[in-house]
Amino acid sequence: MQLSIIVIGDEILIGQVTDTNSGFISRTLGQRGWETRRVITVSDNAAEIRAAIELCMSDSRLVITTGGLGPTKDDITKPLLCEIFGGPMVFDEDVTENIREVFALRGLKLNPLTEAQAMVPKSCRVIQNRLGTAPIMWFERSDGRVLIAMPGVPFETEGMLTRSVVHEIDDHFNPKSYIGHENLMISGITESALAQRLDDFEKNLPPNLHLAYLPTPGLIRLRLDAVGREGDGTAETLKLYYDRLCEETAPYIIYKGDATAAEIAIDAVRRRSYHLASAESCTGGNIAHSITAVSGCSDVYLGTVVSYANEIKSGVLGVDAKLIERHGAVSREVVTAMAEGVAKLMGVECAVATSGIAGPGGGSDEKPVGTVWTAVTTPTGTEAFVNRYPGNRSRVIDRATTEALLALAKALR
Amino acid sequence: MQLSIIVIGDEILIGQVTDTNSGFISRTLGQRGWETRRVITVSDNAAEIRAAIELCMSDSRLVITTGGLGPTKDDITKPLLCEIFGGPMVFDEDVTENIREVFALRGLKLNPLTEAQAMVPKSCRVIQNRLGTAPIMWFERSDGRVLIAMPGVPFETEGMLTRSVVHEIDDHFNPKSYIGHENLMISGITESALAQRLDDFEKNLPPNLHLAYLPTPGLIRLRLDAVGREGDGTAETLKLYYDRLCEETAPYIIYKGDATAAEIAIDAVRRRSYHLASAESCTGGNIAHSITAVSGCSDVYLGTVVSYANEIKSGVLGVDAKLIERHGAVSREVVTAMAEGVAKLMGVECAVATSGIAGPGGGSDEKPVGTVWTAVTTPTGTEAFVNRYPGNRSRVIDRATTEALLALAKALR
Repeated sequence: MQLSIIVIGDEILIGQVTDTNSGFISRTLGQRGWETRRVITVSDNAAEIRAAIELCMSDSRLVITTGGLGPTKDDITKPLLCEIFGGPMVFDEDVTENIREVFALRGLKLNPLTEAQAMVPKSCRVIQNRLGTAPIMWFERSDGRVLIAMPGVPFETEGMLTRSVVHEIDDHFNPKSYIGHENLMISGITESALAQRLDDFEKNLPPNLHLAYLPTPGLIRLRLDAVGREGDGTAETLKLYYDRLCEETAPYIIYKGDATAAEIAIDAVRRRSYHLASAESCTGGNIAHSITAVSGCSDVYLGTVVSYANEIKSGVLGVDAKLIERHGAVSREVVTAMAEGVAKLMGVECAVATSGIAGPGGGSDEKPVGTVWTAVTTPTGTEAFVNRYPGNRSRVIDRATTEALLALAKALR
Repeated sequence: MQLSIIVIGDEILIGQVTDTNSGFISRTLGQRGWETRRVITVSDNAAEIRAAIELCMSDSRLVITTGGLGPTKDDITKPLLCEIFGGPMVFDEDVTENIREVFALRGLKLNPLTEAQAMVPKSCRVIQNRLGTAPIMWFERSDGRVLIAMPGVPFETEGMLTRSVVHEIDDHFNPKSYIGHENLMISGITESALAQRLDDFEKNLPPNLHLAYLPTPGLIRLRLDAVGREGDGTAETLKLYYDRLCEETAPYIIYKGDATAAEIAIDAVRRRSYHLASAESCTGGNIAHSITAVSGCSDVYLGTVVSYANEIKSGVLGVDAKLIERHGAVSREVVTAMAEGVAKLMGVECAVATSGIAGPGGGSDEKPVGTVWTAVTTPTGTEAFVNRYPGNRSRVIDRATTEALLALAKALR
């Protein structure tokens, strides 16, 4: 089944805001058997929006628009939807009630502009937006094709899509369908070598199962999707093939399920009832930033010391200044002392440390840009390794962060 | 002048990768008088790409495609461009030479797939891609309309656009044009109050000058654009109106030019020949992460201590445990002691510290989610303030980071 997405908004078209809604919609509906045919981004202009809707409704069974709604934009999009799908604008009491509730939760007062949001095209069915004031509108053509107008705020679009809109889409297009998926996190093998290893497995998959590779630098997510009907055995087939997939990839599995490198590391530390600290040089706080994005990390993670300067490496982390002088800050000796130093400083069993050259400056023939030493301390000792990561500064930092966190998880296996 | 952008790539359409190229192109060409009419994202499919090109060439003077090039994709896009613009594929010696140079720089060996990239449609003019192996192709129709096929890798697209493609576009569409812009960073006033203040200024702008508001949480960038011809006085007019804009907004100017909050803070510290450290609780390393994104920060910034746990606040930063017990970690007293503690620990003149509740958990009636205490230490003393920031966890962290960095810059004025 084919889907098209229309992103409405001057702020996106002029490049001030990056659209992430279309990707979220594609990923979410892709797991339910939908294929995204195209994404069109247009300005807040009736003629442009109309042309995009007409094009997409002509060749897609489902069209989702995001944006173009809200107090200052309603006067363009809503009358246009009335023109296209027929009927007048009407006042919707439930929408008003929802707006009142949302405002009360936020401690705000209603104003006339916001109240005008309760006017909706009579030709649509309203799906109440529990996360904002712009109502979600479901338009259905006599041939069964559907257009859903969603708000532009990613928090609202993502939340409402997952919470209710996908279920309405399933009910309309694919009642009693079964859609399942299982994830597996893989590390220590390249994508192409993994694809070779799984060639036979993929060839022998039943037609309603699909394997997707979702690689990020240093970590590959495998997602096995299954589409069928309730009670037709698809759930059992999915389980069977997921178990086989786990067997095929056993040496490289770092986590069963879907997780970030930070979640995998925090999970490994928590299982052992240990605590974690970090000492960062070239990653400059990115390890801490990744870990603190994990909800509930604070019972496991105590903190980090970002030691950009050598004085801090010795003064705060207790790295012997002679070590730095003899081996340089980017060395096995110094990164080991950093990891052990921060573990001692914060009184924890586990620590990770990085020291490297993220670029663009600072590289040499011996230690080119991208060279990063990483150390991992656990109760069984400290391991250190060096890698040279490709790409620009932010890619080096991201990759070094991922590898440090995964090395910790592996050391605790 | 209207421009359309076509983004080619399955990985973007299925939501695996977020497109940032179209935003970069819009912003860059927007400053040179181009208006982006639409962005279409399509899969690596000849029929879809063709339909998108035909639609865009029918109503835009310039069409830029990104992606769809490279060793594994060339067999779809290049023959299609031959069909549309006529002529056969030919071997281009300069492209081969460029690929050899790029590979030599990266220490890689040529393979047959890469060599095939040197085949290009005869109907195009090649712009050598100094940052990668996929050649940039310039197609020109007899009516003067242009299609430029660019690679999909953001590093290559952004680099080559700025470095050479924009100049070629200027030469073709707008020879001898003058395009200028000046930026101003504003803080401490809401966007709507600022717009009210600048209402008369905007009304009196000459027609070839344009004022753009580019707000981010806590910081507004004003950009004054001017479009004219070389030597027609536009540059002087721009300077005149920029000076007026500075007068009108004087109390709120935090930086003249375009800069992030971290760049503004680092600049303020460097001007005084001071040094900077940070102590972060709720921002969890994000202050360090923002500062270390500033190239050359290491002569000014020594490091951060992320003290997620109270033990670290007292053990490492030297915050009196009784203070934490009496006032709570999220308090004026504790954040002040954190800033002063990290300044002493790292031996620096300036420090910023944060302690707050980023959510989703941890809030109370007295200290709801979003409450953040910030302290700034300089040689003239320590200032602390509290704010309640709206939004989810990552918005609270971003906003608290920006406000801490700007407060430091203000304290050093």
